Amino acid sequence: MTQNHHSPWLRTWLAHWVRPHGVHQDPVRGREVYQRSTMGALLDGIYDGDVTIDEVLSHGDFGLGTFNRLDGEMVVLDGVCYHLHSDGSVNRADGQDRTPFAAVTWFHTDQAFDIDGPTDRNGLIAAIDARIESTNLIYAIRITGRFSVVHTRTVTRQDPPYVGMAEATKNQRETVLDDTEGVMAGFRMPDYEQGVTVAGYHLHYLDHDCTRGGHVLDFEMTRARIEISMRPDLHLSLPTTPQFLHAHLDRGDVDADVSRVEGG
Amino acid sequence: MTQNHHSPWLRTWLAHWVRPHGVHQDPVRGREVYQRSTMGALLDGIYDGDVTIDEVLSHGDFGLGTFNRLDGEMVVLDGVCYHLHSDGSVNRADGQDRTPFAAVTWFHTDQAFDIDGPTDRNGLIAAIDARIESTNLIYAIRITGRFSVVHTRTVTRQDPPYVGMAEATKNQRETVLDDTEGVMAGFRMPDYEQGVTVAGYHLHYLDHDCTRGGHVLDFEMTRARIEISMRPDLHLSLPTTPQFLHAHLDRGDVDADVSRVEGG
Repeated sequence: MTQNHHSPWLRTWLAHWVRPHGVHQDPVRGREVYQRSTMGALLDGIYDGDVTIDEVLSHGDFGLGTFNRLDGEMVVLDGVCYHLHSDGSVNRADGQDRTPFAAVTWFHTDQAFDIDGPTDRNGLIAAIDARIESTNLIYAIRITGRFSVVHTRTVTRQDPPYVGMAEATKNQRETVLDDTEGVMAGFRMPDYEQGVTVAGYHLHYLDHDCTRGGHVLDFEMTRARIEISMRPDLHLSLPTTPQFLHAHLDRGDVDADVSRVEGG
Repeated sequence: MTQNHHSPWLRTWLAHWVRPHGVHQDPVRGREVYQRSTMGALLDGIYDGDVTIDEVLSHGDFGLGTFNRLDGEMVVLDGVCYHLHSDGSVNRADGQDRTPFAAVTWFHTDQAFDIDGPTDRNGLIAAIDARIESTNLIYAIRITGRFSVVHTRTVTRQDPPYVGMAEATKNQRETVLDDTEGVMAGFRMPDYEQGVTVAGYHLHYLDHDCTRGGHVLDFEMTRARIEISMRPDLHLSLPTTPQFLHAHLDRGDVDADVSRVEGG
């Protein structure tokens, strides 16, 4: 490194390195999904992470997750991180808040299509699965539209000592949103990543007024634009908290466990 | 991006970005293990990759893997990629050769210790496991020493249509090296990454003369220096070859399959 490192020219150049939305110019980092921690760790009750929301946003402008103490659902859209609380309220997340699990990417649309007419979750999944090149790759999925109904779940802030997520979500708050417009943000992950991530579809919803939303359990849409961004790289970043380091992360029946808590 | 992108100053600056050995200055990429494709894909007979050795070496200076058509074992040491053939010969790999599976990192020693006295594979594993902070993180392991015996396996070049790796390694060439000095290079991966990677220890051996080696099945060392490099990030990069895209990568009994072919 040279003293030129801090030249005004370099600052300008670095400022252009990361565009505000959609594209990261580093050819490697621009095509990856960055994920902090594993779904298996979350299932095991590892709810306190060491990475800030600001750091997560340096790895992508689109995605989902949760917050420390399992305090609600996260939606990241156009570089803004929204915090969906279990009392139904939504606010822009504090950049210094921390997360035990989040997945983000620099979203750019590789392909898009419209659905016009009543379509349920299975119908949407079939429509996307018919269009993607391979179920062995990773896809970021953005669905913008009108929904006659969206069933959501918003996890509730936990107090230590933590119980596992299956126990923590047993009496979870579920909400039915009727006749709502908004965005679902999330991913389709390959089966072989089950446990590290959520295999298959994992979507979080935020309505257009940014006042309601949550983890998507089920829905019926009336019309929507579906945008798909293929991502060939998964960058898994592991916590180094004592809680994570000492966890017994055996794999067990991870399929059943993920289905139970994520409603897949 | 500006026209300054190609200035001589920038070229100098970029030339300093990657040091020849050990440390990548990008704070994110410097701490990751870069892996191309998955162990599950290799088990399924996905033996033709689309990434060159030169590209693999741009992601790390230390690691292991194989070559297209499952043509032998790969060892990467100090930025040099060695090609270990099933006929027992070793040469420096061609940078334009391609690999279906490789894992590399920028190795720097976080901790080191010496073993002086007869120690077998299980003894070494116990000694390392006693020193690492957590089995939930990733560790690059470099073992430099003298071995009274090293059992190795070197996979044999396959012809399409390919059979799965369990079938391909059924009549594998195994070699017993007696009284040999050299280096074992590899990783200790968390259990929850089984199938995506090889969970536990995965080591390849190259003797000091760079004339013999292979995938390590078993050994007895007389003295060795063990260096450990903790890596909190796993960067999984997926192929986009037709063979990979259309593979049925269900997880099945991945534990048994990996043990069968890797001798773990």
